[in-house]
Amino acid sequence: MNPTSENLQHLRHTLAHLMAAAVLELYPDAKPTIGPAIDNGFYYDYEFSGTNPDGTTNKPTEKELKDIEKKMRKLLPSWKEMSGKEVSEVEAREIFKGNQYKLELISDIIAKGEKITLYTAGHFTDLCRGGHSESPAKDVPADCFKLSRIAGAYWKGDEANTQLTRIYGLAFETKAELEAYENMMKEAEKRDHRKLGKEMDIFDFDDDVGPGLPIWLPNGTAIVEELEKLAKESEFKAGYVRVKTPHIAKESMYLKSGHLPYYAESMFPPMEYEDGKYYLKAMNCPHHHKVYASRPKSYRDLPLRLAEYGTCYRHEKSGELFGLMRVRALNMNDAHTYCTEEQFADEFRAVNDMYINYFKIFGIDKYIMRFSTHDPKRLGEKFVNEPDLWKKTEDMVREVLVDSKIPFVEVANEAAFYGPKIDVQVWSAIGREFTLATNQVDFSVPKKFDLVYTDKDGTQKTPLCIHRAPLGTHERFIGFLIEHYGGNFPLWLAPVQVAIIPVGDAHMDEAKKVRDMLHSAMIRTDFDTSSNGFGKKIRNAKNMRIPYTIIIGDKDMEVKKVTLESRDHGQIGQLSVEEVVRKFEEEIKERK
Amino acid sequence: MNPTSENLQHLRHTLAHLMAAAVLELYPDAKPTIGPAIDNGFYYDYEFSGTNPDGTTNKPTEKELKDIEKKMRKLLPSWKEMSGKEVSEVEAREIFKGNQYKLELISDIIAKGEKITLYTAGHFTDLCRGGHSESPAKDVPADCFKLSRIAGAYWKGDEANTQLTRIYGLAFETKAELEAYENMMKEAEKRDHRKLGKEMDIFDFDDDVGPGLPIWLPNGTAIVEELEKLAKESEFKAGYVRVKTPHIAKESMYLKSGHLPYYAESMFPPMEYEDGKYYLKAMNCPHHHKVYASRPKSYRDLPLRLAEYGTCYRHEKSGELFGLMRVRALNMNDAHTYCTEEQFADEFRAVNDMYINYFKIFGIDKYIMRFSTHDPKRLGEKFVNEPDLWKKTEDMVREVLVDSKIPFVEVANEAAFYGPKIDVQVWSAIGREFTLATNQVDFSVPKKFDLVYTDKDGTQKTPLCIHRAPLGTHERFIGFLIEHYGGNFPLWLAPVQVAIIPVGDAHMDEAKKVRDMLHSAMIRTDFDTSSNGFGKKIRNAKNMRIPYTIIIGDKDMEVKKVTLESRDHGQIGQLSVEEVVRKFEEEIKERK
Repeated sequence: MNPTSENLQHLRHTLAHLMAAAVLELYPDAKPTIGPAIDNGFYYDYEFSGTNPDGTTNKPTEKELKDIEKKMRKLLPSWKEMSGKEVSEVEAREIFKGNQYKLELISDIIAKGEKITLYTAGHFTDLCRGGHSESPAKDVPADCFKLSRIAGAYWKGDEANTQLTRIYGLAFETKAELEAYENMMKEAEKRDHRKLGKEMDIFDFDDDVGPGLPIWLPNGTAIVEELEKLAKESEFKAGYVRVKTPHIAKESMYLKSGHLPYYAESMFPPMEYEDGKYYLKAMNCPHHHKVYASRPKSYRDLPLRLAEYGTCYRHEKSGELFGLMRVRALNMNDAHTYCTEEQFADEFRAVNDMYINYFKIFGIDKYIMRFSTHDPKRLGEKFVNEPDLWKKTEDMVREVLVDSKIPFVEVANEAAFYGPKIDVQVWSAIGREFTLATNQVDFSVPKKFDLVYTDKDGTQKTPLCIHRAPLGTHERFIGFLIEHYGGNFPLWLAPVQVAIIPVGDAHMDEAKKVRDMLHSAMIRTDFDTSSNGFGKKIRNAKNMRIPYTIIIGDKDMEVKKVTLESRDHGQIGQLSVEEVVRKFEEEIKERK
Repeated sequence: MNPTSENLQHLRHTLAHLMAAAVLELYPDAKPTIGPAIDNGFYYDYEFSGTNPDGTTNKPTEKELKDIEKKMRKLLPSWKEMSGKEVSEVEAREIFKGNQYKLELISDIIAKGEKITLYTAGHFTDLCRGGHSESPAKDVPADCFKLSRIAGAYWKGDEANTQLTRIYGLAFETKAELEAYENMMKEAEKRDHRKLGKEMDIFDFDDDVGPGLPIWLPNGTAIVEELEKLAKESEFKAGYVRVKTPHIAKESMYLKSGHLPYYAESMFPPMEYEDGKYYLKAMNCPHHHKVYASRPKSYRDLPLRLAEYGTCYRHEKSGELFGLMRVRALNMNDAHTYCTEEQFADEFRAVNDMYINYFKIFGIDKYIMRFSTHDPKRLGEKFVNEPDLWKKTEDMVREVLVDSKIPFVEVANEAAFYGPKIDVQVWSAIGREFTLATNQVDFSVPKKFDLVYTDKDGTQKTPLCIHRAPLGTHERFIGFLIEHYGGNFPLWLAPVQVAIIPVGDAHMDEAKKVRDMLHSAMIRTDFDTSSNGFGKKIRNAKNMRIPYTIIIGDKDMEVKKVTLESRDHGQIGQLSVEEVVRKFEEEIKERK
């Protein structure tokens, strides 16, 4: 369940302590630094400084993880209880005197004016804010965890600092849940979008183009264009209009929007052009605000819904780039709705309906909306100082979410500066969680761009703006879909929709005719004319996960039909080409 | 007729001399510099240095053009013949001793080792290479020309030099042709794409975005997307596959392609990123070559036709930016076909067929292809040193052009460095000429990117590459179409396809229902719910050049029909909404 239950959170945090205790028993010179609970378990970062007889550092490798795990299980029964107490700075410094990392953390706590607390279980005491199982021996099942891997990590995440050794553990409330998670990850590995993306010729990277800049190969572009088509149809029906804006703008645009200087480090560096600096856009909003501003607007023009599949460029650290999931070029299913306060609830509801419709189309059964609200204490500081608008819009958003029975959690103090926000989390078919899309209310930026409309009474008012991207970016969404479908794209999305395979050379001409008929009907075909044998051709089509295969042999030609096989449902039987086309057209139209 | 006939060329050149003679009579202190024939007439650049009694420079304004014209007509009968002779440098310098511009031209001629020739008619002698009417008084009709306007121009086109005064004249072989040209230009002014683009909300520019970077407003984007849809359909049927590539690439890409350093001044300046320089792409070819290179290719993969509506960015001087016609952001209907030498003729023919098909769709009746070939004397210098490939491809191109009866002219010595090229010139409905698209053969660049395929015999060969963009860029093509259609876009291209106008308030609900039915059928509607009167609503729809208007009044509601009016054909009559949808769908599908 998401969010993680408090109990599971405590269990994981306790296991981080337990691992540190076990590590210290096996590596007495190790210095534990920090060890939090995370999404699927916990980790702890250590400095290992003991030396082996041969002079190398005495530190564990993947193969020693089993020993540490064993030691954890041995210590666990003796951790009858885990209790905390407050200590003075002097006491704390005495206890951690050999560990410069803990001493630095103590200084940090003192600087923030917070209290120092220690938690002890068994013989192990750690500097800690608390949040553990009260009785580990009883509360933590010995078979609910597993140490999973070792990685490097910098102290406080800063590359200028010492590199530490991070040991990760998986932990769940029961053994069954742990196993389910491990099975899911094994399946996720088989469905890894980078692996399938390569096998299925979906995308590529190139050193001369640059890291994090995906090149969509023909097969990937077919998926991209089907998604765009879906978005365009859905958006047209929902009353959006489309715009097309440049990928660059002058510095003055981003000074106006406030992206410069505050967001500068997420943007690509500027081009020094003849009339000043130009930037690649990192978001489409400012350009859309300019579309709004290009003509005077009256209340009759609202709501105005501007949609664009804009490509944005963002700086991501090279170490954080990851396949299609974290990239520097993002094709966003973006739109901005400008509306009055009165129109807001309906507009917001319509955006939610669009989400739900997409979930249905893609067979996404599990999803949740994370609704981030403001903290009234931080108005004018972390949140734009519009108490009434915050209250009004948050109430409306909440009401829409409750009304439409969408599962959601509300998180205070995490809204954007300019308004409440919703992050959409979805689970793939194998149960892995992805954050795909956001939906934000903005009552601050339209003012910066002097966006106004003339109301019925002749006064000039500032519209609200909803930023929304239900399909997120092509990059992340297609990465998600590859895993979700395991590469078995439904017919409408499949890069190649049907493979045409003649049984022998005698059937080649007929196969060519069939191929031409399907191609004329705008079906994406693969006609294997190679000298490969029939069996190999069939296997190739399977490897490419093509939804349908058409086989043409003597028996087919005799009755002027073809034999149709489905990837998902096996042999379908003999059909005329016209019947095949009709079947495909229907299946594609319905996006089944 | 294009190209301009020799006779007309001579006539225009003669008139440039005649204007200079007239100017000298009226402004004895003027210094003529250069005066060539141009597309629609001629011009001559002068330095005017005489002073008026009030101290200002004595130079003509638009209103004095009539006087100069009159003087020209007065001098013309005395220009019985125009003859040239060669003179020595000393003689020439003596004749033009007061005119530093002519003296500089004399130095230039000497530096190039060329001969100095003078041409005289009446009392006027000019430094000139020749090319005039032999007997102006007889050959040049006195009513075939008109001085049209005055502009500034720098000596030798260099902003660092003195600014001169340029006087333009229009000239044709007959008075009728002159008038036809003037009428065409008057019509072109009415159809000016900047004017209509504004009136019809098609595009806009914004100072914060930058000059030369069009923002496509919703109405313009509708046209853009219809054109893309047409291209995608046509290209799919012609066996193209689509790709999608980033708008940027690293410096190494353009060093490899040779665009750097040679083409650098046409590119936007680089972004200094963490791993080196990145450039905005000024063309799509290198990215497409990377798509080709991403997987090993065999002869069976060829021809490979990669298409992309890529947005490219090019530096154009700010003074040369002109509406949609000369911009810095270009959305190109681009594709690259990689093929063997054996496949070349068929591929080239197929590209031509696509051109012809587009001409038909857009009602472009007059067009010509300008076929630029190499000069064998400049192989290895201006043209890549592949004599056989030049001959072979040029022969094939010529054969295809002749076979398909496409009007073309052949121009030697104007090919691209890497292969022969075709520029496509079309005439708009009012007879104005536009260069829209190019089609190039490339046998040099694929080598630079190590592009190869394994041939039947197992050897590695380099493919030929055809660069083609039949619809050119959206910017220029839509600029052309606005003039071509005078804003009266056919139904399939029209930003708004139908206006729905209720006769009175009582018909509002019914009109809304009709609007929803049409919208569900993906028809772009405009439903005028304003408080404007019926007449004003009808006028607005006419001003926006909406192809159809649906009127809903009592008589329509009685019979559950609507009244349909066509912009181009007037009243059509009462139809049911279903009949209207069917009519529209058919017209849109056929792109009539």
